[in-house]
Amino acid sequence: MSQENTQDVHPVTFALAQIDACVGDIAGNGKKVLETATKAAQGGADVVVFPEMCLTGYPIEDLAYRASFRKAAREEAERLAVSLDKAGLGNLTVIVGTVGQDSHRGTDGMIHPRNSLVVLSHGGVQETYDKHFLPNYGVFDEYRIFSPGDDFLTFSVGGKKLGVAICEDIWQEGGPVAELAREDIDVLVAINGSPFEDGKISTRRELAVRRAQQVGAPVIYVNLVGGQDDLVFDGGSFVVSPSGRLLESSPQFAEDLSYWTLPAHTEADSLDSSITTIVPSQTSDWQVYHALVLGLRDYARKNGFTGAVLGLSGGIDSALTATIAADALGAQNVWGISMPSRYSSDGSKTDAEQLAENLGCHYHTQAIEPFFESFQSQLHLTGLAQENIQARIRGVLLMAASNSQGLLTLATGNKSELACGYSTIYGDAVGGYAPIKDVYKTRVWQLARWRNAQADERGEKEPIPVNSIVKPPSAELHPGQKDSDSLPDYHLLDKVLAAYIERSQGRQELLHDGFDAKTVDTVMRLVDRAEWKRRQYPLGPKVTSLAFGRDRRLPVTSRFRQ
Amino acid sequence: MSQENTQDVHPVTFALAQIDACVGDIAGNGKKVLETATKAAQGGADVVVFPEMCLTGYPIEDLAYRASFRKAAREEAERLAVSLDKAGLGNLTVIVGTVGQDSHRGTDGMIHPRNSLVVLSHGGVQETYDKHFLPNYGVFDEYRIFSPGDDFLTFSVGGKKLGVAICEDIWQEGGPVAELAREDIDVLVAINGSPFEDGKISTRRELAVRRAQQVGAPVIYVNLVGGQDDLVFDGGSFVVSPSGRLLESSPQFAEDLSYWTLPAHTEADSLDSSITTIVPSQTSDWQVYHALVLGLRDYARKNGFTGAVLGLSGGIDSALTATIAADALGAQNVWGISMPSRYSSDGSKTDAEQLAENLGCHYHTQAIEPFFESFQSQLHLTGLAQENIQARIRGVLLMAASNSQGLLTLATGNKSELACGYSTIYGDAVGGYAPIKDVYKTRVWQLARWRNAQADERGEKEPIPVNSIVKPPSAELHPGQKDSDSLPDYHLLDKVLAAYIERSQGRQELLHDGFDAKTVDTVMRLVDRAEWKRRQYPLGPKVTSLAFGRDRRLPVTSRFRQ
Repeated sequence: MSQENTQDVHPVTFALAQIDACVGDIAGNGKKVLETATKAAQGGADVVVFPEMCLTGYPIEDLAYRASFRKAAREEAERLAVSLDKAGLGNLTVIVGTVGQDSHRGTDGMIHPRNSLVVLSHGGVQETYDKHFLPNYGVFDEYRIFSPGDDFLTFSVGGKKLGVAICEDIWQEGGPVAELAREDIDVLVAINGSPFEDGKISTRRELAVRRAQQVGAPVIYVNLVGGQDDLVFDGGSFVVSPSGRLLESSPQFAEDLSYWTLPAHTEADSLDSSITTIVPSQTSDWQVYHALVLGLRDYARKNGFTGAVLGLSGGIDSALTATIAADALGAQNVWGISMPSRYSSDGSKTDAEQLAENLGCHYHTQAIEPFFESFQSQLHLTGLAQENIQARIRGVLLMAASNSQGLLTLATGNKSELACGYSTIYGDAVGGYAPIKDVYKTRVWQLARWRNAQADERGEKEPIPVNSIVKPPSAELHPGQKDSDSLPDYHLLDKVLAAYIERSQGRQELLHDGFDAKTVDTVMRLVDRAEWKRRQYPLGPKVTSLAFGRDRRLPVTSRFRQ
Repeated sequence: MSQENTQDVHPVTFALAQIDACVGDIAGNGKKVLETATKAAQGGADVVVFPEMCLTGYPIEDLAYRASFRKAAREEAERLAVSLDKAGLGNLTVIVGTVGQDSHRGTDGMIHPRNSLVVLSHGGVQETYDKHFLPNYGVFDEYRIFSPGDDFLTFSVGGKKLGVAICEDIWQEGGPVAELAREDIDVLVAINGSPFEDGKISTRRELAVRRAQQVGAPVIYVNLVGGQDDLVFDGGSFVVSPSGRLLESSPQFAEDLSYWTLPAHTEADSLDSSITTIVPSQTSDWQVYHALVLGLRDYARKNGFTGAVLGLSGGIDSALTATIAADALGAQNVWGISMPSRYSSDGSKTDAEQLAENLGCHYHTQAIEPFFESFQSQLHLTGLAQENIQARIRGVLLMAASNSQGLLTLATGNKSELACGYSTIYGDAVGGYAPIKDVYKTRVWQLARWRNAQADERGEKEPIPVNSIVKPPSAELHPGQKDSDSLPDYHLLDKVLAAYIERSQGRQELLHDGFDAKTVDTVMRLVDRAEWKRRQYPLGPKVTSLAFGRDRRLPVTSRFRQ
């Protein structure tokens, strides 16, 4: 589809509407699109660009199969076009991602709609484009639920020819972008639902530059922002020119409305001087920490929680988790419970208390000794069973606080623990959300130091007691216990885990990389045997290239050990 | 690929080798293939047909990404061919499913191998066929991990021309089967990894007849058997003729080696008189019960558990679960723990004890009162928090037994409870496996009556106390509590759940079907809000067309209520 450019040549102003949509809140998302578009028009926009599937929220998973869901989304798009017109914004062009036509019944007998983009103006849906490439790897299951588009779309606004694409479409050289490259477009508008991963922002920009070169026009990249279950969309929308210049960049991890104007004459010089807002680039620690905060904040908000409860052990994992919770929800909405046992060191108790005081969160102590004695007087447990029962008593206490006060329970396990199964299921693993489950232990330390340094820079008190950072990690479930009794040193462990988990290396490859056989065999055995526990672990935000969960689908029952 | 038929015309005997493979146990599976093929040759087979991916186990999920895994499978296939030859079976043709070539790198940067079939004879891999259609719906993620084949395969044995297909290939009219229809084949051999669903066996047979008609030759359908995480492969291999006659049928839920001989002359009359073993068809209750037993037995065996522990409440869910466990593992390997509270009726305690006596399993009573008092003396909980703490104390006790004795903990929740979130997470929901999680409450009663009737027929004592079947269901967490205080009557509830969950109906459709608005709104709200709990629930066997888990992927965070 394509329209002839018959109008005079003007600059065209685009608003990059980086909004946080909620899955299934179709009316609420529609209202936000209307309000944001209205504001953008007031700010001088000719075209407002919203992210992928922002009318339905994203990803919708098997909600795609529900006829009532698809109907609600279709009606909302039409209603939105009418509302914009009634508000006197009929001339505004609004590009919104949503669920598309019921065009295709799959071999599974279900209707597979399209992942679509609608162009709203003059009171109606003027154009539709359907996503061509459906990602079905990593966390994505789009081939499961959608059917692919088979056409491309260009249309004109103010005498300029726009081409469009949806997310994965620009990750491949063929398909719609290849078609657009033959269409002499003035700008390529890509709407995205691209989840955060450490380092991904530069990948996206490099990719967008390649596509800008391919189509010979600047690329406007608008990304969703917000947490959705185990994903955090980081926003970070931008505009790049074919020469590789960054013409606009929006902040990450916050809603934003920024503008960029396509000049009347689009020679390289005019384009490259069309720079507007450029936010400073941020460090990896800054990005990961903000992803964790936004992931938790949105999980709580979108699921109706105003506060959270967690156990404070005095250790680094609970300290970092509490700090994230205070930053996400406000310290006044965080309840920390210290649950010391006979094996807890004095240092642990004072570190926990000091943390709570630094944060200004609620703090409460509940010794587990009376409960432990009560169980032991009848059960006389030893060894692992005795260790686990302490952790499980703590789980019971946390859930009692959660049930009594309507609080979201936070699990404090890190990725190294989760990998090795170094946690007690139904004990320290209880919770509705696990903020640091995709953060290796060594990175936990690093983020804790980073967060303290941030406080320093702002002239605030460092939240995390230094002792929690520097002391040897211990579960404190038997006298003198240290993590290093059961696990390799975390600096070594995390390297083996990254190779085994994120790079899918087998035993021979790990040995070839110089890891010793004892460590490799221990780690592989621990990781493989802990799969059943990970399946029952709470959701938490993905921040690495390969998180546990739908990103890594392995059988529980598997005897493969190579 | 195709070979000319240059040989004389003989009858050809096929062995249907319905084996139970374990995912990742490549050497073990290879050994089983060798032993079974040897036995089949002794039984007079010319061709031995094994199920889909039986050399690697199935489904392999993201193990497909591991180079070490693919290499091990390739080497095992070659080793197997050599071993067969060395055993003097070089003339035998062995058709085995396995992971295939590393031919394709996906857009995700990972190697996507083929889902393949190899033909072994004369000491080598003589032919390879790659699955064409990759199921990516329901429980399947094959488009994620495999790349599709693009060719078909025929080859000759004893002067007969064989065509082959892998599972999903025969669910579609086009693709390789359409090619084979032009090839004048004498028989179509389809190898399968088709998981059990109530009613699926007749669907498979009708489908196979359609394909037999399409290619104008009988279809040999060999299916995997055994439990793998949440799937139960039911076997039930068979042979059908183009006229729709069942020429062979193997038992469900057990390993089997049966034979069928393709006559020298394959006119309809000769074919339809080539009937061999036909097992009697079984009722739906028989099939579902056997699926539950095999699911648990294989989960335990393949994960190294010899015994299981569960709470016996006197209710029907734990009674049926214990009976399944006794049938799966032997009563001497089942530990039932009665954990009465101040709210438990005398009837509950005697029913639990009676069940254990009937089954002959271990039985132990541990009142929760002292632990409950211990928590209450400090926490003074009320309402839901007080109810849940009782269930969580029981969870702690079960896991203590599990940890002390190395037992697999069984969760006893049914599908109706799981749907509505009518359980206590970390309480009665603890466990490594949940045998009846895909069985609605009304079906639980039905299966209990069926199992008792089976005992009657065999002249055995009925295992399940009638009182557990007929009494009103209660969680017994507060005085006089009944499930019907919180939930619609189960006969109504289960109908609404089936419509909402299995048929993806929305609110309007449910009202249109005649359900009242109050019930519909209650059920939809309960189901939607319980998603987070279901995510943390143990694995259990799928027996319906849509089970919770990877079969139904819905966001936890969703505000859609239509």
